[in-house]
Amino acid sequence: MAPGLPTPKKYFVTAGAAEGSTPLNAFDNALLAARIGNVNLIRVSSILPPGTEFDPNLELPPGSLVPTAYGYIISTTPGEIISAACGVGISRESFGVIMEFSGKCTAQEARAQIENMIREAFARRGMELVDMKIEAVEHEVKRIACALAAVPLWY
Amino acid sequence: MAPGLPTPKKYFVTAGAAEGSTPLNAFDNALLAARIGNVNLIRVSSILPPGTEFDPNLELPPGSLVPTAYGYIISTTPGEIISAACGVGISRESFGVIMEFSGKCTAQEARAQIENMIREAFARRGMELVDMKIEAVEHEVKRIACALAAVPLWY
Amino acid sequence: MAPGLPTPKKYFVTAGAAEGSTPLNAFDNALLAARIGNVNLIRVSSILPPGTEFDPNLELPPGSLVPTAYGYIISTTPGEIISAACGVGISRESFGVIMEFSGKCTAQEARAQIENMIREAFARRGMELVDMKIEAVEHEVKRIACALAAVPLWY
Repeated sequence: MAPGLPTPKKYFVTAGAAEGSTPLNAFDNALLAARIGNVNLIRVSSILPPGTEFDPNLELPPGSLVPTAYGYIISTTPGEIISAACGVGISRESFGVIMEFSGKCTAQEARAQIENMIREAFARRGMELVDMKIEAVEHEVKRIACALAAVPLWY
Repeated sequence: MAPGLPTPKKYFVTAGAAEGSTPLNAFDNALLAARIGNVNLIRVSSILPPGTEFDPNLELPPGSLVPTAYGYIISTTPGEIISAACGVGISRESFGVIMEFSGKCTAQEARAQIENMIREAFARRGMELVDMKIEAVEHEVKRIACALAAVPLWY
Repeated sequence: MAPGLPTPKKYFVTAGAAEGSTPLNAFDNALLAARIGNVNLIRVSSILPPGTEFDPNLELPPGSLVPTAYGYIISTTPGEIISAACGVGISRESFGVIMEFSGKCTAQEARAQIENMIREAFARRGMELVDMKIEAVEHEVKRIACALAAVPLWY
């Protein structure tokens, strides 16, 4: 077998929200708030490889290609509450499952959604869920805002 | 030239549909139905590299990063018919072209769309089309459902 | 640290627009017009790695996996003017920032948006902007059309 793309070995869970003068700048600023604004996110759906190590202090080199599961919402409605949450369900000996959610709701509601989604994903696979790591963020829109939550995978 | 991302060497064509308690769980369950639910899909648009080998029995290691062309539709309208199709147009000696389609239609209509799309892609490139491999799936929505079709690329 | 995905070393900036008989064919044809139709684009968000070299004559091997920041708009409204622009903000010694924009506007307006977005991204990071490279395209829709602008990253 020819070598493929390398399977990630580390991860963390993060969330951030920010305003911006355009929707994409709000997204960019939310990425910065989540400490992943200076890399190239490659969106993935969404499995934590077996043996991946949780490392909340990971430093990602600027411009790196970073496989990342993420969810976000952008709103241009002042006063609106927006939230995003992302979480990992962890099994004892196998892979994990990553879920993301965003909506016009509180962070608490987004977090509850993620918990339910992870439980269903594990039940559907017949796997035992031993832990969850979830981050969520809530933001009241001033002008143009983005709330984002992500699980970056790294090496 | 520095080495880049490795070009895929194998592929298969798949489709699946499923219900879920949330849109993302329906998507996750459709991925499982299509046998690609336990990997990290990286969405690509959408060329079959020259010399790529068809391998319908490919086993993808859990958590792997898998470049994949895919299309999907999620519906929350009970009774609605949804379909997704994905197909590869194959040339004799060069690369192929991958097309995806999803909509509120039958699998037969989705398949016909893919055929037309592949023919146009080949005509536009002045290439001769020698074969097509297409998979399609149709689903009647119960509550929250996803229909998905994909061409995973692998090594 | 295990080796991760290789960080790109070269880039160019491109834009194209085209009609097609379906939305995805219009997208495919716009990619061809932009000289990136025969590769597998992997969408990234959106940093120019430090030291990346501008190479407008890059040849991408067919079927390659090409990390690319891009924006596009598809319209099915005959007579509508659509535009897409993509640009890179360049710093003297560090990484750059890529921004994309598309909308129902002129190429000149899309280009102006990109300039503002890049300026905000640099201001937000406290970085000095020394140059911008922007490409934009404008198209009047006949039937089904796509306008696309991209910054492909390569090795």
